[in-house]
Amino acid sequence: MKAISVTDDKKLALIDTPTPTLNEGEVLVRVHAAGVNRADILQAAGHYPPPEGESEIIGLECAGIIEDPGTTNRSKGEPVACLLAGGGYAEYVAVPEGQLMPIPQGYSFAEAAAVVEVATTVWSNIGMLTGLSKEHTILIHGGAGGIGTFAIQMAKHIGATVAVTAGSVEKLQTCAQLGADILINYREQDFAEIMKNKCDRILDIMGAKYLDGNLTALAMDGHMVIIGLQGGVKGELNIGKLLSKRGTISATALRARDRADKARIVADTVANIWNLLEEGVIRHHIHATLPLEEAQKAHDMLKSGEVTGKLVLTVS
Amino acid sequence: MKAISVTDDKKLALIDTPTPTLNEGEVLVRVHAAGVNRADILQAAGHYPPPEGESEIIGLECAGIIEDPGTTNRSKGEPVACLLAGGGYAEYVAVPEGQLMPIPQGYSFAEAAAVVEVATTVWSNIGMLTGLSKEHTILIHGGAGGIGTFAIQMAKHIGATVAVTAGSVEKLQTCAQLGADILINYREQDFAEIMKNKCDRILDIMGAKYLDGNLTALAMDGHMVIIGLQGGVKGELNIGKLLSKRGTISATALRARDRADKARIVADTVANIWNLLEEGVIRHHIHATLPLEEAQKAHDMLKSGEVTGKLVLTVS
Repeated sequence: MKAISVTDDKKLALIDTPTPTLNEGEVLVRVHAAGVNRADILQAAGHYPPPEGESEIIGLECAGIIEDPGTTNRSKGEPVACLLAGGGYAEYVAVPEGQLMPIPQGYSFAEAAAVVEVATTVWSNIGMLTGLSKEHTILIHGGAGGIGTFAIQMAKHIGATVAVTAGSVEKLQTCAQLGADILINYREQDFAEIMKNKCDRILDIMGAKYLDGNLTALAMDGHMVIIGLQGGVKGELNIGKLLSKRGTISATALRARDRADKARIVADTVANIWNLLEEGVIRHHIHATLPLEEAQKAHDMLKSGEVTGKLVLTVS
Repeated sequence: MKAISVTDDKKLALIDTPTPTLNEGEVLVRVHAAGVNRADILQAAGHYPPPEGESEIIGLECAGIIEDPGTTNRSKGEPVACLLAGGGYAEYVAVPEGQLMPIPQGYSFAEAAAVVEVATTVWSNIGMLTGLSKEHTILIHGGAGGIGTFAIQMAKHIGATVAVTAGSVEKLQTCAQLGADILINYREQDFAEIMKNKCDRILDIMGAKYLDGNLTALAMDGHMVIIGLQGGVKGELNIGKLLSKRGTISATALRARDRADKARIVADTVANIWNLLEEGVIRHHIHATLPLEEAQKAHDMLKSGEVTGKLVLTVS
């Protein structure tokens, strides 16, 4: 089959490679579309190796058609979206059955491939881990990004009060259009002071740089979840401040979870989010689709910072 | 009524003071016994003021008899144990109804007064907050202390594997007799290396000093709860390490919780722990009882470090 490989000089190139063989409980999916994620760029640079035993091929989400159901009760020809530990940038990928999702009604393969990672990430953290409710105020950092825009819509659907940070007036307008109630331009304003003691939930992508500010913003019994470390890895934690608020800090990632855990998250995400996608309550924007062989161009675009939605690779 | 007051030179002395008046939903309890806690020493030194609107009198737990049921449906003469925000070192105390517990069958007033804080603290953290189960390994720091000995017995009753730290062979023997499986002398051994990646739950009283070691000891999806800061307030948190384990850190305290929250914890503790006290599954040791007027002596004893169980003040 055709697949994308990383060359010795860290470039993405189309190669011929054996079609994956199936392990127990896996199906072979003919990939029609594969989502592009920031983590893919890290993996291409050699910084984010796949979990042991998983495909070396880049690609954390895809949509396509079951080519071989293996030992499962699935049917050949069934259209599916897939949460992957790797292998999406290819014509075929082996997928554990628990990581298959239906294509949301009305969604193209490209739209389905684009929404898997963001939906499972946002729901597993905001819904499953922290139990966001309509009584809560949630602070979403990077509100205009892929995770942020999805999280705003989900939180507003739940009925929570939503505060966001972003770096420009335009980005904050995007957040406002999606329903965000409190708009904070982090280049000009101090989110910690504005939201002091007000945030029952915080979804953070900055890590160390925002650790103490998030702690200031946290409300009594608040829970912050760190899913990105764009602002550094190590930071000073004032445990007395955490204790005075009876606060909780979690840090999570999806890819390294075992298959049972992924299956649990996939099932819960489909049960709680898929109808919202089908009804248009949550919308997710594709910036551009490119053919698989232009994977390098897709990465270059994403690195440029000019991309305002998802990039998707299509496989003909 | 008689009560203990803090003199200008930070000594405890018996004084005459007005009997408390009742607010809506409170009962007046005639105190027979009041537990002594380390937090009481902090309060006597001026470092731990009561929450706003609560009694200035020291004392976080007591047992006695309802003298005046106020507007509640309770009966005069009913024996009760009480979780207090303050006021225990006195002949009478006003108690919100939600903070009343039955006296465990077979328990004296002194024994009941001694067990309220430790039972609610251990259950609210290990049971309610972290959901300890028999599949888990829990690390309990300060295993030979009041919280530690109670937590070991509770965790063993649940069926968890229990590791403890303590500072002497004798203290570790105490822990072993209560059922602890893994004994670590923190003066000679590195708990973080011994328990590396093994602890699904950690109950910590050291704060900053143990923060990184606890993170090393934490297992995947592990949850550590910090309930004491004996090792300092501020420590470096390696968020990358936390994220690689999908870990959670909580810090909690009981006293500042609002009445509804306390009532929730009291009810859940009685439902889950009281039968274990009555059946002797969990035993709690009283070191000595002293009359109320010797409160200063009780504090001096506790500060000396020679106390191996609970101190209780009795009111005649």
